[in-house]
Amino acid sequence: MFENKMPRYDILSEESMATLDAGWRRIVSEIGIEFISPWALDLFREAGQEVIGDNVKFDPDWVIAQLAKAPSEFGLRARNPKNNVHIGGDSMVFGAVYGPPFVREGDVRRDATFNDFQNFAKLSQVYGSLDSVGGVVCEPNDLDLDTRHLDMAYAAATLTDKFFMGNVVRAENAQDCIRVAEILHGGRAAIEEMPALISLINCNSPLRWDDRMLDSLREYALAAQPVVVTPFLLMGAMSPVTIPSTLAQQMAEAFTGIALVQVIRPGAPVVFGSFLSNIDMQSGSPQFGTPESGVGLLCTGQIARKYHLPFRGGGGLNSAQTVDAQSAYQTMMTMMPTFLSGTNWVMHTAGWLEGGLVSCYEKFILDMEILESLMVQFTPLVFDVGSLAFDAHEEVGAGGHFLGAAHTMERFRDCFYRPFLSNSDNYERWNRLGARDTQARASEIWKKKLEEYVLPEMDPQVLAELDEFMALRKSQLAF
Amino acid sequence: MFENKMPRYDILSEESMATLDAGWRRIVSEIGIEFISPWALDLFREAGQEVIGDNVKFDPDWVIAQLAKAPSEFGLRARNPKNNVHIGGDSMVFGAVYGPPFVREGDVRRDATFNDFQNFAKLSQVYGSLDSVGGVVCEPNDLDLDTRHLDMAYAAATLTDKFFMGNVVRAENAQDCIRVAEILHGGRAAIEEMPALISLINCNSPLRWDDRMLDSLREYALAAQPVVVTPFLLMGAMSPVTIPSTLAQQMAEAFTGIALVQVIRPGAPVVFGSFLSNIDMQSGSPQFGTPESGVGLLCTGQIARKYHLPFRGGGGLNSAQTVDAQSAYQTMMTMMPTFLSGTNWVMHTAGWLEGGLVSCYEKFILDMEILESLMVQFTPLVFDVGSLAFDAHEEVGAGGHFLGAAHTMERFRDCFYRPFLSNSDNYERWNRLGARDTQARASEIWKKKLEEYVLPEMDPQVLAELDEFMALRKSQLAF
Repeated sequence: MFENKMPRYDILSEESMATLDAGWRRIVSEIGIEFISPWALDLFREAGQEVIGDNVKFDPDWVIAQLAKAPSEFGLRARNPKNNVHIGGDSMVFGAVYGPPFVREGDVRRDATFNDFQNFAKLSQVYGSLDSVGGVVCEPNDLDLDTRHLDMAYAAATLTDKFFMGNVVRAENAQDCIRVAEILHGGRAAIEEMPALISLINCNSPLRWDDRMLDSLREYALAAQPVVVTPFLLMGAMSPVTIPSTLAQQMAEAFTGIALVQVIRPGAPVVFGSFLSNIDMQSGSPQFGTPESGVGLLCTGQIARKYHLPFRGGGGLNSAQTVDAQSAYQTMMTMMPTFLSGTNWVMHTAGWLEGGLVSCYEKFILDMEILESLMVQFTPLVFDVGSLAFDAHEEVGAGGHFLGAAHTMERFRDCFYRPFLSNSDNYERWNRLGARDTQARASEIWKKKLEEYVLPEMDPQVLAELDEFMALRKSQLAF
Repeated sequence: MFENKMPRYDILSEESMATLDAGWRRIVSEIGIEFISPWALDLFREAGQEVIGDNVKFDPDWVIAQLAKAPSEFGLRARNPKNNVHIGGDSMVFGAVYGPPFVREGDVRRDATFNDFQNFAKLSQVYGSLDSVGGVVCEPNDLDLDTRHLDMAYAAATLTDKFFMGNVVRAENAQDCIRVAEILHGGRAAIEEMPALISLINCNSPLRWDDRMLDSLREYALAAQPVVVTPFLLMGAMSPVTIPSTLAQQMAEAFTGIALVQVIRPGAPVVFGSFLSNIDMQSGSPQFGTPESGVGLLCTGQIARKYHLPFRGGGGLNSAQTVDAQSAYQTMMTMMPTFLSGTNWVMHTAGWLEGGLVSCYEKFILDMEILESLMVQFTPLVFDVGSLAFDAHEEVGAGGHFLGAAHTMERFRDCFYRPFLSNSDNYERWNRLGARDTQARASEIWKKKLEEYVLPEMDPQVLAELDEFMALRKSQLAF
């Protein structure tokens, strides 16, 4: 797990922060937030908030009091304890792309299948720098809709020994995922003591929380499994066209969602989520990897820290259709701020293409190169006699070179980041070796990496219990 | 001209800075720096430094006293005063790539010609966000070696009305460039009062300054035209394999070069230059856009500010062969730190490909998109009633959308950065329109931009004087 010990790049002044604070307070108290959920409305009414129809007008100080009950950081359990992670503080935890219905493999774009899901799970297991396959790394369209959440959880649980995300399509799916986690980790008490599932709960922005998402939120909150409470904000469509107003809205939506978690189970772990970009004002299409999304992320980090909440955001977002230059610079436009803001839980780290509609094999490899490069860039320098290397300067003197210096010989193996995708061959050699661009090289790498995959060991008794649960639930759901 | 009013991302502690300070002091005083230049050695000897052979051992405090004579910022004159720039402080000034002998145009890589040089000059004129064509935007291999500096200066002076760089191949070339600047700006007094040429003086790192570069440095310093005193550091070859040792070396080399400028003409403008990356330790080939180069740049900015010197660094550096994903993520890996460190003079902003061996048309367009995006990202947010947009939230409420809100209508034209290269069409539309990747789209754009080019107006008398000087010098040099 990566810890970001570099400084945070904070860009909001105290005054701007106070303005944002006044902004979300006005939204929740004067306009209110809709909760399309009878039980949620009841809970808020019981807690003394003003409920009229589906609208809840909040006392902002009450909301803040709820936020204060959430832990500022927490651990997340993986099947292999070596892969346990920590969400919050300086930790940065990375999961693969979430949600795409399509895959791209070289020049072929097609419906995603369960085989693709399994492949991406394997790739996520192979790369040590990736902490999780995430949840729906791609939609297994060839599987039955009612039971595919079971297949995905099973694949993530067996093909990887890392943590994974819970399903949120309906409450029953959430219960199934919690049961899988119980089986993997030795029962309910274990996962309540240290959670094993993290789940994405999106707001139907602006200012509305829908029943299905809230029903899943409740299941996970009751089991003390963290939910990522995430406003879904494409500026110009789901929020106004300025970043400050969108940040105020993001706070209003996320804070009230988090308050609900704390009402359900005080102290349950929770993550302040951000998914903030903008539409193209000409075409209305979503854009990712925009400068505005980068700025939004920097601000979000600062806001989350002010309220002592772990936060989610960033990742390798872009609007590109192929693994071309656009896919790379847009990814960097969000991934660099992801590190600058010290984002705690980074979804969509690897594989995201085409505005999130496509899980792409080659993009996965590209993203791993970017991730591992940034991990090096965001590792503090060591200042000591050895790194100052006066002896090397004495040895080489003027006009020489350092290739054979003793200091170089000691350190050459790991002194620099070693790219596995970037190429620095000279033109003649590059041409002779086939003149392959980044996409072509990535295509070769993911196939090789899949071959390197080794199934992680699993306790046979746990596997048997898991298989039994799968069979039971599939028979129950098959009608 | 862009002013970066965002915070600087400083990563060096006071203690680390003190360690670096001790480091360069030890190098210049105990190992010394070689100056392959009789007149430079004389000047240092006269100034009381210890000269043995070509080696000069410096009193570090004397060096610091020389640095203190250099202005911390200065103006640079363009033919069109609207294009004047300021080097130092919050200003960031951007020039195109410098030095490549080859060009790439789509899939064709070939020797660069003067026609290419002129094309890049025109593209530099068309893009308002680029402050200068730079100097040798590509090597005009089809022109006579002895006089091509005249042709390049003439092209930059007539095809653009922006400032440009002086030639440094030999002292005579520098004199010619200074004369061109005098003609353009109304005589020597004018350019001494506010300089018109900036020139790149590279160190033959490690720890050696060569005669040709120093002879050019002297010409420019005597004329009070700024030189960019730049250690040339590929870690592992020209410096040790750690960033701290390389930073200490960079200070030792740059500071002594700057001291020489101040001995020649106290108070002459000067820029602390940085060109810092690393080699691949397996193949020995240079690598650009590495995480290490990003870290080096962040540190360099902080060092330059400590010594009140404007600094140069960054740009769109990469090792890629084509305008593929690698070219883009490596460019971002240096361009983002370029902005984070508030680099004052950014060479190689547009067109750099293949480790600097190639000026590429498509890369030029890609780099302009990246540059203009980052300018938006590094523009502080406005916090006021209008940007907080409570009225928009009141108007839209819960579950609606902001596309038709009054607040959106007022701002939709310029609320977000408008990409000219990035594409966010949906897959079907993108496919129907030819499935063009970023490189293909960039190829179309540069051709269209060249058609949009308009020759900037020029005083006929100045042009006549310039033509006369060109004819004279060409006749003198043609033997």
